[in-house]
Amino acid sequence: MNKNLIIRTLGLVLICEAGAMLPSFFLSLYYKEPDMLPFLYSILLLAVPGFLLTLIRVRNKDVGYREGFAIATMTWLVTAACGGIPFLLSGTLTTFYDAFFETMSGFTTTGASVIPNVEILPHGILFWRSFTHFLGGMGTIVLILALIPSLKVAAMQLYKAEVPGPTKSKVLPRILQTTRQLWKVYMLITATEVILLVLAGMPLFDSFIHTFGSVGTGGFSCKNASIGAYNSPAIEYIVIFFMSICGMNFALHYSIMRGNFKALLKDPETKLYLGIIAVSTALIALNAFNTLGYTPSEAFRSSFFTVSSIITTTGYVTADFDRWPDFSKIILLLLMFVGGCAGSTGGAIKNVRFLILFKSAARQILKLLHPQAVVPVRLGRQVVPDEVVENVQTFFFLYMLIFGVSTLYITTLGFDLVSAAYAVAATLGNVGPGLGLVGPMTNYAILPDSGKLLLSFCMLVGRLEIYTVLVVFSTRFWR
Amino acid sequence: MNKNLIIRTLGLVLICEAGAMLPSFFLSLYYKEPDMLPFLYSILLLAVPGFLLTLIRVRNKDVGYREGFAIATMTWLVTAACGGIPFLLSGTLTTFYDAFFETMSGFTTTGASVIPNVEILPHGILFWRSFTHFLGGMGTIVLILALIPSLKVAAMQLYKAEVPGPTKSKVLPRILQTTRQLWKVYMLITATEVILLVLAGMPLFDSFIHTFGSVGTGGFSCKNASIGAYNSPAIEYIVIFFMSICGMNFALHYSIMRGNFKALLKDPETKLYLGIIAVSTALIALNAFNTLGYTPSEAFRSSFFTVSSIITTTGYVTADFDRWPDFSKIILLLLMFVGGCAGSTGGAIKNVRFLILFKSAARQILKLLHPQAVVPVRLGRQVVPDEVVENVQTFFFLYMLIFGVSTLYITTLGFDLVSAAYAVAATLGNVGPGLGLVGPMTNYAILPDSGKLLLSFCMLVGRLEIYTVLVVFSTRFWR
Repeated sequence: MNKNLIIRTLGLVLICEAGAMLPSFFLSLYYKEPDMLPFLYSILLLAVPGFLLTLIRVRNKDVGYREGFAIATMTWLVTAACGGIPFLLSGTLTTFYDAFFETMSGFTTTGASVIPNVEILPHGILFWRSFTHFLGGMGTIVLILALIPSLKVAAMQLYKAEVPGPTKSKVLPRILQTTRQLWKVYMLITATEVILLVLAGMPLFDSFIHTFGSVGTGGFSCKNASIGAYNSPAIEYIVIFFMSICGMNFALHYSIMRGNFKALLKDPETKLYLGIIAVSTALIALNAFNTLGYTPSEAFRSSFFTVSSIITTTGYVTADFDRWPDFSKIILLLLMFVGGCAGSTGGAIKNVRFLILFKSAARQILKLLHPQAVVPVRLGRQVVPDEVVENVQTFFFLYMLIFGVSTLYITTLGFDLVSAAYAVAATLGNVGPGLGLVGPMTNYAILPDSGKLLLSFCMLVGRLEIYTVLVVFSTRFWR
Repeated sequence: MNKNLIIRTLGLVLICEAGAMLPSFFLSLYYKEPDMLPFLYSILLLAVPGFLLTLIRVRNKDVGYREGFAIATMTWLVTAACGGIPFLLSGTLTTFYDAFFETMSGFTTTGASVIPNVEILPHGILFWRSFTHFLGGMGTIVLILALIPSLKVAAMQLYKAEVPGPTKSKVLPRILQTTRQLWKVYMLITATEVILLVLAGMPLFDSFIHTFGSVGTGGFSCKNASIGAYNSPAIEYIVIFFMSICGMNFALHYSIMRGNFKALLKDPETKLYLGIIAVSTALIALNAFNTLGYTPSEAFRSSFFTVSSIITTTGYVTADFDRWPDFSKIILLLLMFVGGCAGSTGGAIKNVRFLILFKSAARQILKLLHPQAVVPVRLGRQVVPDEVVENVQTFFFLYMLIFGVSTLYITTLGFDLVSAAYAVAATLGNVGPGLGLVGPMTNYAILPDSGKLLLSFCMLVGRLEIYTVLVVFSTRFWR
């Protein structure tokens, strides 16, 4: 293991994180609020040790598989641990577990919170909290689209390799170019949403907060009632639109920017994703309309918003879906497992994996009738290699296993079965709000420390798509 | 498709089923109870059309894959539909859906019931109800160990092919020999349990009923309070022992009968199965002991009984586990998914599949570190072929998918989320009692007809290990 290289990289990460706190520091200066000094100290506490770590001499610049996994996992752990310092110094949160949970929730774009009342927080703290969504959202795309395919890990990307657009090249030196293209798309989407929200009547500061939350599919808000606080259908539809497109593959958005609309229409994953949104919205709207006495337009908007918010793993709220009928609640639970598309800022299992799982199941049934037939699994015109199929199937098993074991542990903390299951599904899938004790109108503050730690781990495992974390925690890794 | 052959086979099945009703008919004569005529009519209603069907001339005696699947699925459907006739004619049940549910539950050794009060039923009806467990239990083993491996379907059996014992030969002509050996084991176990239960003070009739229920891992009782009605630790431990061994591979029992004890001790699946029972018993005993005020011996026995009953998918009850803490309830839910061993009378996903899933996950993680390595999945000394690994992984996905979709449907019938999930898990896994509305002290009578039909289907799909049923329902099958 090239330890010096890893340590030096972490030093760079700390410097970058300190830099990322500058906007919040300037905001605290502008508003003359008491989080000014906490941000100043935090920046120094990160930048100085970070600078010292970069002085370590790295003779060997080789980055192998091990280094890649170690850097990915440790970067997220370190940024989450250090990113919580402003919360602690400003007194927003008082324990390490709380600060770690909140920051991990931010960077993994989960949006689960342990802060009961966000409306009393200073602007700098609110901005920093949501800015982690923005950084984490992009970080994820870069990680998944650029870094991981070069390591040949992410099953998805072997397929994505032939999608028109910036992912076409899997070669390492092109990572920078890919990253730059994706940043362009990301910045454009972000700027557009801020402008539209302001035009729809949302204050500028709030527009930034909710744009970060929706483009990163995170879900942190500056209102306790989330998007519901604005009571504005226009704002809700804008947020629906941006959450939904950020749950799609960003490589396809880049193709669209270059005028290639066909790529989007032909993509089988996008079709499945939009189909699930349409069907779920209709089912929940009917269910809510029949049993809760909503008007048709309320039922539709409320259902559309919640479905988009949950499937994209954002977690913004306009209705207390904890009070919806169980049929609607189970649909939401299933959506928490589905998640967004590969190469999006969304989390969970992702649509393309379900496509592969379905097609592999169809192949098994065909093989029963024609045992000698050689049947490849196809996505559109692409053949999915068998090793990718196995990777996806194992991913599904591990996801369900982590879900089951974590739920079991959470019940030992006094949670009922339903609350525990939703809490784990919502953190593992990077969604945010669950149901019951951790529902849309409550938060994760009631959990004991060990529960917060476990759910923080679930967020990380979900965000890094399981394997990256598991490999670092395997005994073989350290031999 | 060789339709004449299928129809003639179904005729034979009807004659056999009519014959299987004879013991119940004689019991009704002996006790001079009003179910005498219903059984006489049922026997005639089955035997006469059955005989006529066997007169159909079968020119072509070829049995291909299609015929195999069609015969397996249709045999279970027909026996379940016709086996309910005595319930209807005797007035025990009044609708086709109820009778179908109860008989399907019997033959699939599920043990879920729609009869609220079994203690008022005549002896013949009670015997028939439990006798279906006995037949279904053995039918399953023969099906899985003898018929299916010859069709190269059951993933498990490719591995089992080398286990010492009667499964060594996969060749079709040896099926009869295998079946005969397994029947010997099965009869010996059955006779032993009946004798031991009588010695422990259970009436002879009740001993037969509960022996059928435990060797078939079914769960029908002649008491409303199930095994709990006898209030006897000796009886409980006897039932625990027989449920547990019937959840193991019968091929291993045959080896033991021939003096080969090592086969059992070396079998990785048996180790996992016993390990899960030990750990779950300990966890639930501690949990129940701490929160429900049981004495240590009560907590241990109650936990041991319930764990054995659920993991073997029997479903006998001595304690109202619906009132246990959620931690214990989730362990029970997980056990409903685990189930027994391959080649046992138990249902659900089965331990060997979990072994393969775990080993395949370990292989994936190893491959991340050594991408070029060729790592076979091993069970003991056996290499599991990759196509078997994929079969198992797909099985897991389909199992979870059917679980999720069926649970969603059951909530539309007014069930809460937890009751719906347990109802589906308990029928798909052939367990029997669930929790909540279908808990150990209640039953499935409250379900509307469509729910009964869906859960009957779940029982069948679970018992025939998904693929056999799905392939018959696939469009390609009928082309």
